[in-house]
This record gives sequence, structure tokens and C-alpha cells, in this order.
Amino acid sequence: MKSVGFVGVGVMGAGMVKNLLQAGFHVSVYNRTREKAEGVLALGARWCESPGDCAEGKDAVVTIVGYPADVEGIYFGPGGILDRAKKGAALIDMTTTSPAQAQRIHRAAAERGMDFLDAPVSGGQGGAAAGTLAIMVGGDKAAFDRCMPIFSAMGKNIVYEGPPGAGQHTKAANQIALSGALCGAAEAISYAIRAGLDPERMLATIMTGAAGSWQLSNQGPRMISGDDSPVFYTKHFIKDLKIAMDEGTALGADLSMTSMVLGRMERLAQEGKGDLGTQAIIHTYL
Amino acid sequence: MKSVGFVGVGVMGAGMVKNLLQAGFHVSVYNRTREKAEGVLALGARWCESPGDCAEGKDAVVTIVGYPADVEGIYFGPGGILDRAKKGAALIDMTTTSPAQAQRIHRAAAERGMDFLDAPVSGGQGGAAAGTLAIMVGGDKAAFDRCMPIFSAMGKNIVYEGPPGAGQHTKAANQIALSGALCGAAEAISYAIRAGLDPERMLATIMTGAAGSWQLSNQGPRMISGDDSPVFYTKHFIKDLKIAMDEGTALGADLSMTSMVLGRMERLAQEGKGDLGTQAIIHTYL
Repeated sequence: MKSVGFVGVGVMGAGMVKNLLQAGFHVSVYNRTREKAEGVLALGARWCESPGDCAEGKDAVVTIVGYPADVEGIYFGPGGILDRAKKGAALIDMTTTSPAQAQRIHRAAAERGMDFLDAPVSGGQGGAAAGTLAIMVGGDKAAFDRCMPIFSAMGKNIVYEGPPGAGQHTKAANQIALSGALCGAAEAISYAIRAGLDPERMLATIMTGAAGSWQLSNQGPRMISGDDSPVFYTKHFIKDLKIAMDEGTALGADLSMTSMVLGRMERLAQEGKGDLGTQAIIHTYL
Repeated sequence: MKSVGFVGVGVMGAGMVKNLLQAGFHVSVYNRTREKAEGVLALGARWCESPGDCAEGKDAVVTIVGYPADVEGIYFGPGGILDRAKKGAALIDMTTTSPAQAQRIHRAAAERGMDFLDAPVSGGQGGAAAGTLAIMVGGDKAAFDRCMPIFSAMGKNIVYEGPPGAGQHTKAANQIALSGALCGAAEAISYAIRAGLDPERMLATIMTGAAGSWQLSNQGPRMISGDDSPVFYTKHFIKDLKIAMDEGTALGADLSMTSMVLGRMERLAQEGKGDLGTQAIIHTYL
């Protein structure tokens, strides 16, 4: 495992490629907008003209793009990754996408003698830059073990979750749990404001106890100060929650709270606020 | 401030009285069931035959009982605390009850030349025993300052939240935020189980990141193992959430998630599960 093709050098990918280069991998990159790749090209990454070019002949191919439709295109499109990667290659999709899609790509890869792992991440741009991402991996255990040097270069909390799709299912569970803490923070803060409390004082009081959460501590102060700048985009959260709802519905899971949060996020997007951070959910409460 | 009357020597009160005694206060106690007070009587607390007896002549009176109706009875009942406490006494209700009730008691106390503080806590039996409770206080600031030695004997994170009722409003906000994290944990875990994930592995993966919460880390493992033993009783949570909903409705607050969680808790109680811990919400999802 020396040569890596990397598709998707955006906010996340740039840091991840930098860390792969520092770990000694030969990295070839493709991105829809070439300018975004200039930083890693200056660090020694090689430019490719298409996802297929990026995959050809490489020991491993890592992808992290926007939406399930983008994943579909780069893997299944004509001259795409599945057409061009070599037999024995390890394909790793780190996009947050659907478990069903991950399972389909896994089957297609297996038919071609390739490994496929679904390996979505959490930890954001900061974690990508610092190489401290949490990586949730589904697929064959042997492939997971084989790819560990690649994962180790990019993350810290790297967990084999189970068969194909298990990484995506874990990420969906992550977004579901996060939704609860997020709307809990928003309901508590909007209640506190209406009750005439000093919301900052309220927050400082409750965030260290049984009501505490990452969302309350980190997004709560932004909700109070009216800082809508994105740590995580509302439009991307909508994508993630739609995946969770689709899968959950198919599985017969009760996702009452998640569904309610998705509805609020979609309302924000309809108002042209999809580029705000997820803490903007507070606007649906005030 | 040397003599303290303490009404309600239950699971929480016993630890709190012990800490007051250790801090050098002379404590007189009343409890509906005398047996529960035997522990603190052995440590030097004096027994009283009624809440009124307990209040008479004391510098301060601390109450922590079950429900708003109990608070009503001990303060406003014939021969109750407001009848018997001396002028200049500081009355402190640490029960989780309604802001409106706290404001009414405050007015009645003021008419009699007494101070009243609403000072609900969080931190549970462990915090009460260790003297590390979070205490959220509403009322007059001068009374808060005057009572600080009493609060310091029982808690660590002691915050003046604002005017009468502000302590109870803060506790309501705490229970609202907690509800979100709790149902987020339950939806994520029930989803993970249906998706065929190893829920413990999923939990270990997500609980350190942006989805993390006290509820996920502490109640999640109990939800997975089927341990319904109470850290916090479902029946008490129902009381707290009803208060939050009543106040929230009066204030025009949107508490969609909180209302949904209350509905699930009430369903548990209707099934005779009110004595289970709040993590039993998972049964409404599986």
C-alpha cells in the first residue's frame, strides 16, 4: 500500500491528503474544482484529470465527495473508479452516504476483485487537518486490517463496525444522537430566553451535569450570540438526516425526534439558510 | 445563620443534612416517614413532629419534598412553614417545582418579612451525599448572598439565576436539554440495533464526538444492557417535564421534542413502569 488515489479535495479532503503525504504515501488527487487542490499539489500530490485517472493502478483509492449522487457518478460512471481501478485495489468511500449504496458498491467491487470499505468520518475540518478524525468502517475485516495504515494517517478513533454498510449505519446513528442533543439545546435556550433568564448563565449552570452534551457546550453559545457561521452546514445535515430517515423507515425504526429535526432543517433550507451552521435550528424556535 | 430546619429527609435530603451537620449547622429535621431520618438523627440532627415545628425559630428553613402539592402543603398548610417561621428567616425550597409556585411562596414570605429562595438542584443522590450538587437559585440577591454558607455546605456549582422563579426556570431548561439528549440516545441505539450493528461498539465510537452527551455515555450502556434501575425515576421526570410544558405553554415556547418525550414517559407510567429509570424510554422505541 504505497500509492493512493484521492478523489475530493475539499474542506475535509485537503487536510486528509496532507496527512497521507506526511505519512509517506504517494498521493494522486482529483477534484471537481482544481483550484481547491493547489495547496496539496504544492505539498507533492500529483494532479489527475478524472476520478478514473486517479484510481488507475493505485493500491488504494479514497473518496470523500458531497452527495450520494456524486458517489454514484465517480464509482459507477463511465470510465469511473470501478472501471479503472486495478484488481486487488482497496476502494474506500469516506463520504457520508447511504448504507444501501455502500452495499451496492461493495458488491460491484467484489465482482471485479476489489475491496470496498465504507468509512465515513466525524470530527470536521479540524479533525481532518489534525489527523484526529473518528472513522467508522464497514466492509470485510481483512480489507479493514490491510487499510489500517491509511486510516491511521488520517484519524485517531478508528473502529471496525461490521459488514458492508456498517460504517454508514454508525454514522447515521451518530447524526440521530446528535439531533437529539441539538434540539434539546435549542428548546432549552429558547425556553430560557422566553422565561427571562440570562441564557448564558443558564447554560453555564446546566452544561456540566446530566443535561450536558457537546452540542450544548459548543453550539449553545453560538445559538445565544446569534452566530450562525457553519461548523457543520445545515444543507449537509439535511442530506445526512434524509439518509437516516430513509434507512430507519426501511428498518421499521421509530425516529420521531429525528424526523422533527429534519423538518426544521428543511424549513431553514427553504428560507435560503442551508449554508448556515446547524445551530441555526434555534431560529425555528424563536 | 446557625439553626436550620430541614423538611424532607429522603434519598437527597439525608446526604444534604449530613453535610449541613458537618459544616457546623444545628439542624432540626422533619420527614413524613420518621424511619428515613434515623441516620441523620444518629449524627446529631433533632427530630420535629411537623414542618411547622421544624421551621419555628430557625434562622433558615430548607425543604426538599416530592411534588408541587407537597410543597403547597408544607408552606401554606395550617400551622405550616409560613405560619410558624420567624420574621427575618430565610426559606429555601430545593424541590423541583413550578416557577409560578415559587413566585407565589416568595410573595407570601415577603408579606411576612421572610426571605424565600427557589433553589432546585441537579447531581442526584451521589451529588447530595458528596456535597457537590449544582444549585440553581432564584430570589432576591441579598438573600442569596446571606444563604451562601448553607448552599456551600451542600453544593459546588451554586449559581444565582435571577428573580423569584429563576432557579425553577433554570431547572426546567435543564430537564428540557436533558430530554433531547436522552431521546437522541434512545433513537440512535434502537436504530443501531435494527441495523444489525453492535450497539456497544457504535456507542463507543460516537460518544466522544459531536454526538456525545452525559445521557449517551451514562444511560446509553444501560439502554443496551436492559438495566432499567433508576438513577432518576421516570415518575419524577414526568413531574418535571409537566412543569416545563405548563410553563413553556404559558410563555409561548415551542417544546415539540420535550412534549414528545413527556408522552413516552407517560406511556411508561401507564404501563406501570414509573419506578424505572428514565433510560427505560428505550422500551418505547424497541
